[in-house]
Amino acid sequence: MNFQSFQQTFLRIRSHKVFELFIVSVIIFSALMVGAKTYNLSDQLKFVLLWLDWGITLLFLMEITIRFLGEEHKANFFKSGWNIFDSLIVLVSLVPIEDSDIALVGRLIRIFRVLRMISIIPELRLLLNSLIKALPQLGYVVLLMFIIFYIYAAVGTTFFAHINQDLWGDIAISLLTLFRVMTFEDWTDVMYETMAHYSFSWIYFISFIFFTAFAFLNMVIGIVVNVLEEENQRVKELQDREQGKATLEDLRDEIKALKELVVLGNKQ
Amino acid sequence: MNFQSFQQTFLRIRSHKVFELFIVSVIIFSALMVGAKTYNLSDQLKFVLLWLDWGITLLFLMEITIRFLGEEHKANFFKSGWNIFDSLIVLVSLVPIEDSDIALVGRLIRIFRVLRMISIIPELRLLLNSLIKALPQLGYVVLLMFIIFYIYAAVGTTFFAHINQDLWGDIAISLLTLFRVMTFEDWTDVMYETMAHYSFSWIYFISFIFFTAFAFLNMVIGIVVNVLEEENQRVKELQDREQGKATLEDLRDEIKALKELVVLGNKQ
Amino acid sequence: MNFQSFQQTFLRIRSHKVFELFIVSVIIFSALMVGAKTYNLSDQLKFVLLWLDWGITLLFLMEITIRFLGEEHKANFFKSGWNIFDSLIVLVSLVPIEDSDIALVGRLIRIFRVLRMISIIPELRLLLNSLIKALPQLGYVVLLMFIIFYIYAAVGTTFFAHINQDLWGDIAISLLTLFRVMTFEDWTDVMYETMAHYSFSWIYFISFIFFTAFAFLNMVIGIVVNVLEEENQRVKELQDREQGKATLEDLRDEIKALKELVVLGNKQ
Amino acid sequence: MNFQSFQQTFLRIRSHKVFELFIVSVIIFSALMVGAKTYNLSDQLKFVLLWLDWGITLLFLMEITIRFLGEEHKANFFKSGWNIFDSLIVLVSLVPIEDSDIALVGRLIRIFRVLRMISIIPELRLLLNSLIKALPQLGYVVLLMFIIFYIYAAVGTTFFAHINQDLWGDIAISLLTLFRVMTFEDWTDVMYETMAHYSFSWIYFISFIFFTAFAFLNMVIGIVVNVLEEENQRVKELQDREQGKATLEDLRDEIKALKELVVLGNKQ
Repeated sequence: MNFQSFQQTFLRIRSHKVFELFIVSVIIFSALMVGAKTYNLSDQLKFVLLWLDWGITLLFLMEITIRFLGEEHKANFFKSGWNIFDSLIVLVSLVPIEDSDIALVGRLIRIFRVLRMISIIPELRLLLNSLIKALPQLGYVVLLMFIIFYIYAAVGTTFFAHINQDLWGDIAISLLTLFRVMTFEDWTDVMYETMAHYSFSWIYFISFIFFTAFAFLNMVIGIVVNVLEEENQRVKELQDREQGKATLEDLRDEIKALKELVVLGNKQ
Repeated sequence: MNFQSFQQTFLRIRSHKVFELFIVSVIIFSALMVGAKTYNLSDQLKFVLLWLDWGITLLFLMEITIRFLGEEHKANFFKSGWNIFDSLIVLVSLVPIEDSDIALVGRLIRIFRVLRMISIIPELRLLLNSLIKALPQLGYVVLLMFIIFYIYAAVGTTFFAHINQDLWGDIAISLLTLFRVMTFEDWTDVMYETMAHYSFSWIYFISFIFFTAFAFLNMVIGIVVNVLEEENQRVKELQDREQGKATLEDLRDEIKALKELVVLGNKQ
Repeated sequence: MNFQSFQQTFLRIRSHKVFELFIVSVIIFSALMVGAKTYNLSDQLKFVLLWLDWGITLLFLMEITIRFLGEEHKANFFKSGWNIFDSLIVLVSLVPIEDSDIALVGRLIRIFRVLRMISIIPELRLLLNSLIKALPQLGYVVLLMFIIFYIYAAVGTTFFAHINQDLWGDIAISLLTLFRVMTFEDWTDVMYETMAHYSFSWIYFISFIFFTAFAFLNMVIGIVVNVLEEENQRVKELQDREQGKATLEDLRDEIKALKELVVLGNKQ
Repeated sequence: MNFQSFQQTFLRIRSHKVFELFIVSVIIFSALMVGAKTYNLSDQLKFVLLWLDWGITLLFLMEITIRFLGEEHKANFFKSGWNIFDSLIVLVSLVPIEDSDIALVGRLIRIFRVLRMISIIPELRLLLNSLIKALPQLGYVVLLMFIIFYIYAAVGTTFFAHINQDLWGDIAISLLTLFRVMTFEDWTDVMYETMAHYSFSWIYFISFIFFTAFAFLNMVIGIVVNVLEEENQRVKELQDREQGKATLEDLRDEIKALKELVVLGNKQ
């Protein structure tokens, strides 16, 4: 009973608007600190930042603890990927860093704290979920695009490797070069270089640009159609709910019943 | 009474089509003058332009005065942001400029006069309002995009600052560099430079391009869906007004009433 | 009477599928000749091309004559812009060219003959008309975009003219430079150059890119919405025609008439 | 009878999920081998790859044979373009390659094996078919775009050939240069070069960009509208099937029948 009320208290704190706002402010402050550290700072300021960093780590630890204690079923807490992510970020922040190699990990962890913004603000979490949910629907177009890339990369390496090792040395480098061509980034330099050896190599580049542009276009249209379908579904459900009171079938049944009544009346 | 008719006169002038057209012509002329001043002109022409400039300022002053006097409730006049903007532009134009530092401000003010085109033409004002109204709906996608930018900028500064201070010196410079990468502007030069030190840094760039492209795509789709929803809403309202004369519910009620009549008839 | 049948014959020729196909082939052949002339040719081949060119001109003259004679009301012939365009092309081709200055005009006329493809193939003419019809709907967005360009160009010339005359010399050059920035073409080179003098000039470029991208996006969405509206309109008209046989109002009227009958029956 | 059951067995193998999965794995493995061969390998590894290559060829031969034997009507087998493609790939792989010229063909054939991924996975085949089906609808826009390109290329060669032979030498090179300009790839370099001779040549480039951008936009919108129309069609058919039980016409007929009954009752 005592523990129950204890948990209830934490649940109340955790759901409080002020608590949420406070945590968001702390995250923004920690993001600003990450930015500040990229400038040349005086030793004094560096010292202050170190202490502030520990303060933020402790605040985060406190927050996670409150959220954990506020959870009714402790096991559920670690079922949410965001909770695990938050806990990991805080735990790794607690490890004291001395070694220069691990220091880098420490810095990265502090940068990834900014991601906590997404785990805290529900609208961002929702947005990210909907983005991730849209991905598998694009699966086959991405696969098709990768097949195009792979074949062109293999052909490119076969023919152009002896022209420029830095661009067509092996299939991985060729894939990167083709990605560059797809973004139109100095792609004519790449093409003119190969055209000096094979004057018809422009066919390779132009056809590649057409294929990828076409596949990309289809990807975009795929997303748009998905979004519209969902939208239509939503509108339809709304209409159904609104018009739920009467359908054409209802009317027909009513008229049929009426007909029988009239027939009955006529017979009398 | 006298004042009332006085105000009515100005309101009539202000709403007159000829007056509006005249002011638009003056604004276009002032825009052409702004353009003309960027060329090397003879002293004579410069002198003419100076006088024309004063003429335009006086015309604008006159116009604002007419619009102000034509307003029924004087207080309402300054409730519109466009009126305040117009008045400020005119007032600052009136300040005589001698100092070279303030001269620059004077030139800028004359440039911003072109913006008065938007405040005068209702269609442009409407368009701008609808653009501004669309912005907050994009708020969370922009926030998500900024978080992505910020994290990549922090990671980029951490790893690449020692490679090229001009591109990755601090977080502000890194943000600018990442914006450049997002526009595909010589992004491979930036990447190849970092790949010379960290051969796997292409993961950083490719993943950044994917994330931002995906977030950008979602922003665009967000706007399209918003626009379509408004469009659907408009169409639905139109249909409702058209079909307002009879709904399925009305028909059902009519049939019910009919049924009762038949039952009554049968009973007789 | 004789003339009437004469005109009828030409109308029949002109509408014949074979005639149309023949003219399209001649246009394609004339386009290939235009292309061929850009290569270094032997004098012999040049001579052949000259004769072929005269042949094509005569064929076109014949075709226009047939189409003109086939027209019932001669005055209507010159009401179509395409007919005037075709006649002009043919007439100017007939002028013998000796002077080198006019020779250039002659070459251009031969190039513009390819445009006759659009005037001959009805589907292309339809497509072009629909493109041109879509333009005025975009009018205000284009005007808004031009205002943005003009103001930025004026500001750019004011501040950056002393940095690089070739890019910011006067307002026309600045407009061209801004168009280049909008296409993301080496825009960072332009920006870095100005940032060397005004370190905050990135605000100028980034804000310009945002404004134009946003306005452009709205233009695209404007077109899409227009297209969808037309599509919806078409679908609605189709549905109306299909369902034209019965509306809810008809049903209500029928039920009302029925009610009166029942009331009448009850009274009996 | 014996042969029939024989064919049935192969049909069963061919349709088995495990068989399909096995073939997909073999194709992926063959794709990885294609990639591996682009790296510098030890002679030992090269020898292993050669043997693996023969193994894959034999597996593919086996697979085609099974699929052929499983076909009820042998003639139908070669009616599918994909089957012909698969058979050709396998047959050419079987030819022993000694000559260095044919060796290249052998390498290309091994690369195109990756395309078999599309012929095996039904979803990819479906996607590709829908892409190909969308192409002819774009036919006239592509033709219009080609006419624009051709005319600009002819004009460009006429005026700019003497400025830069590498960019405007003949109509084919000019077409390539214009494609480059359309992708915004260092297009200002091309323009500035011509502007040094003809200061108004920017009109040529800006107008070209506008025309192609506008035509491209229309192509995209064309695809979107096509997709939406199909979508609407699908939704409409779904609705028709759902509401198939009662239409407004049915109701009217019912009410009419009812009316007659009432009239009959009144007459009694």
